Amino acid sequence: MPLDPALADRLLAAVDAGFDRQMALTADLVRFASTRGREHACQDFVLSQMKARGWATERFAMEPAALARHPGGSPVTADHSDAPIVVGIHRPRAETGRTLILQSHVDVVPAGPRELWSRDPFAPHMEGDWFYGRGGADMKAGHAAMFAVFDALASLGLQPAATVTVQSVVEEESTGNGALQCHLRGYKADAVLIPEPEDEKIIRANTGVVWFRVEVAGLPVHVSHAGSGQNAIEATQGVIRALRELEARWNAKKGEFRHFEDVDHPINLNIGMIEGGDWASSVPAWCAIDCRIAIYPGERAETMMRAVEEAVLGAARADRFLANSPPRVTFTGFTTEGYTLEPGSEAEAVLARAHERATGAKLQDLVTPGYLDTRVYALYDKIPALCYGPISENIHGFDERFSIASMRRVTRAMALFVAEWCGTEPVQP
Amino acid sequence: MPLDPALADRLLAAVDAGFDRQMALTADLVRFASTRGREHACQDFVLSQMKARGWATERFAMEPAALARHPGGSPVTADHSDAPIVVGIHRPRAETGRTLILQSHVDVVPAGPRELWSRDPFAPHMEGDWFYGRGGADMKAGHAAMFAVFDALASLGLQPAATVTVQSVVEEESTGNGALQCHLRGYKADAVLIPEPEDEKIIRANTGVVWFRVEVAGLPVHVSHAGSGQNAIEATQGVIRALRELEARWNAKKGEFRHFEDVDHPINLNIGMIEGGDWASSVPAWCAIDCRIAIYPGERAETMMRAVEEAVLGAARADRFLANSPPRVTFTGFTTEGYTLEPGSEAEAVLARAHERATGAKLQDLVTPGYLDTRVYALYDKIPALCYGPISENIHGFDERFSIASMRRVTRAMALFVAEWCGTEPVQP
Repeated sequence: MPLDPALADRLLAAVDAGFDRQMALTADLVRFASTRGREHACQDFVLSQMKARGWATERFAMEPAALARHPGGSPVTADHSDAPIVVGIHRPRAETGRTLILQSHVDVVPAGPRELWSRDPFAPHMEGDWFYGRGGADMKAGHAAMFAVFDALASLGLQPAATVTVQSVVEEESTGNGALQCHLRGYKADAVLIPEPEDEKIIRANTGVVWFRVEVAGLPVHVSHAGSGQNAIEATQGVIRALRELEARWNAKKGEFRHFEDVDHPINLNIGMIEGGDWASSVPAWCAIDCRIAIYPGERAETMMRAVEEAVLGAARADRFLANSPPRVTFTGFTTEGYTLEPGSEAEAVLARAHERATGAKLQDLVTPGYLDTRVYALYDKIPALCYGPISENIHGFDERFSIASMRRVTRAMALFVAEWCGTEPVQP
Repeated sequence: MPLDPALADRLLAAVDAGFDRQMALTADLVRFASTRGREHACQDFVLSQMKARGWATERFAMEPAALARHPGGSPVTADHSDAPIVVGIHRPRAETGRTLILQSHVDVVPAGPRELWSRDPFAPHMEGDWFYGRGGADMKAGHAAMFAVFDALASLGLQPAATVTVQSVVEEESTGNGALQCHLRGYKADAVLIPEPEDEKIIRANTGVVWFRVEVAGLPVHVSHAGSGQNAIEATQGVIRALRELEARWNAKKGEFRHFEDVDHPINLNIGMIEGGDWASSVPAWCAIDCRIAIYPGERAETMMRAVEEAVLGAARADRFLANSPPRVTFTGFTTEGYTLEPGSEAEAVLARAHERATGAKLQDLVTPGYLDTRVYALYDKIPALCYGPISENIHGFDERFSIASMRRVTRAMALFVAEWCGTEPVQP
């Protein structure tokens, strides 16, 4: 049932009225340098925010064995976060609406060299329409918006008339195991909304991601006896070439995959990290690269994992150094599939109405070549999985930022969506 | 005056008699994992060995300002060792012979990954004719031999009849500043002998070495927006190609450099270390390589430093990423010149006689493409600088080892050399 226009207007005004407080909460979240494994303090803060709103809460750990058994689980390596997952559950007095999961992640990618930032990445600041800080856009702005929706309703004496499970997860940037652990914990809903920074669009289709490491090792010698062919750092270049060829082959197939036909370069390989050698004057005996590559929705992660192994083996056969010492491929994070949001769901229609009322523009969709936690709900719960959030720039880069005006529009849309999807009831009987 | 044959025979027998003790001292030295900056304990042990032999001793620090002023000084970076230099001075009762500097270094290059070694690199062990351990060949075997020569003479009631300065230095593997600091301290002699592992040959000519670091940095983005040309790790490959071309150009000139005309590949470039990127799913904004390259004797280090800078700039002009963000070149260690041992010196003649008597073979010479501390004495003291030591394998590599039989032959030759060069006198008047 469409939202009462008068309520809608009051709710939009309430979001606006609370917006400074929402930005302050966003800044509080950004101040936590919650990189992988260091999300503990941030999650404790999130838990306190949930308790302050009177929700039931749960705090729990990953279950590596259960994750390993699940086809959507990614490897739990030594680098895996051991920070808890935190969940707050709003239960209405009368369960009359449709249930919802709201989810955000608190893990952020490393800031990288400080000198490439204009200002301290973990000292959030606003300049004009931009809010700067590592993890602000991706995705603490969305995280704070989940609370802001409840606060706006509460300022009107209202709350959702259905159970809303607010999930604060970790490991979104490396494995997707946090979202999957929530699924394994058993939370269910009629739809999920994840406010990732997606330019005020809804994700129609999204790739899966595979992380892998290639380690090259051989027998080094003093540089005075060195031929360049024995250098593990340079031998690694042959591996990179073979992986770029693999990437090109997969991009050439994009016409076979619905929604990706017109995406410029859907399958991105990233050589993200490299390390090798011990001494300038010793021929390096080892070199390792950490990489990520995407996979089309509908393809199994296994398929790409085998393709990567074959590409590396092919490079090894073509190189004197590598042939003597075949590189080792290991899977160090994401081994996840992509998903498609099938058009026509009622949840999407409600979000589209909310978006149009909040922003004055039609909701457009977007196909993205990166991992999103929505895949868990699309693939394994088979519920409408809505990924929708603000305009941003430089996520994973330097001077990461989101548009403050956009975040306000998105929060308005989220509030209208929750009010219509879940319905509302007075807080006091 | 040639050595008395009867004394020579007694001295050779004395070296043999003390050889087990000499190997035990070598093992004691190898047990110190005296990598750059961690030579303190090893140098204290060396000092105790010097004191035990009744020598005058000095222990002193590097003088960065004086090193910086000297044309043979290399940059003192944050990685530079702060371990002391230790010197023992034997003074005869009557100064009748020719004075001598004996020098060895205690710094060793990193062992690298443990799994590439058959056994613990710092647990020295003997197997057949081989003595294994990091830094055994390069050059703690030679270090112990300096003491063994005195011990052999002492077992006959003799000592050198001239001042012998025994110098235990650091920074031989990275800057050559240890040897230069001894020179700056003012030690002088009529000749120097450094027992580096040189296959029982004498070094006729030796290259200089330049260390440098190239840092590539740019503006990264989330991998989902990435074109591969924005990847600092892959942009670094263009720098490596340009440096390999520089290396080829310098090797092509070898005909212009005496003693190097017939050396297979005298100018070796080594890409020794690489590091870049912060996250598998972030396009890397930075990558750095640590390199070393050789220079012919007679060329100034400055010449190669400028050539490296030009090669990197050339690579930058040819690449979209690098053109926007030119790499930074810094000099992080060696900036040293090579040297030539002019044939015909009396010191070389004495060593040749000693070698032939000790081993039964003629002394051959060798041209080497790596740094040697002898350059300080050849270039700045202009004294005969003899570099001569045992047969070895895998220095700077894994399972580094020296031939035990060879080390015995070399010690025999060193003892005969010292006895003839310095003359001998009874320890007791």
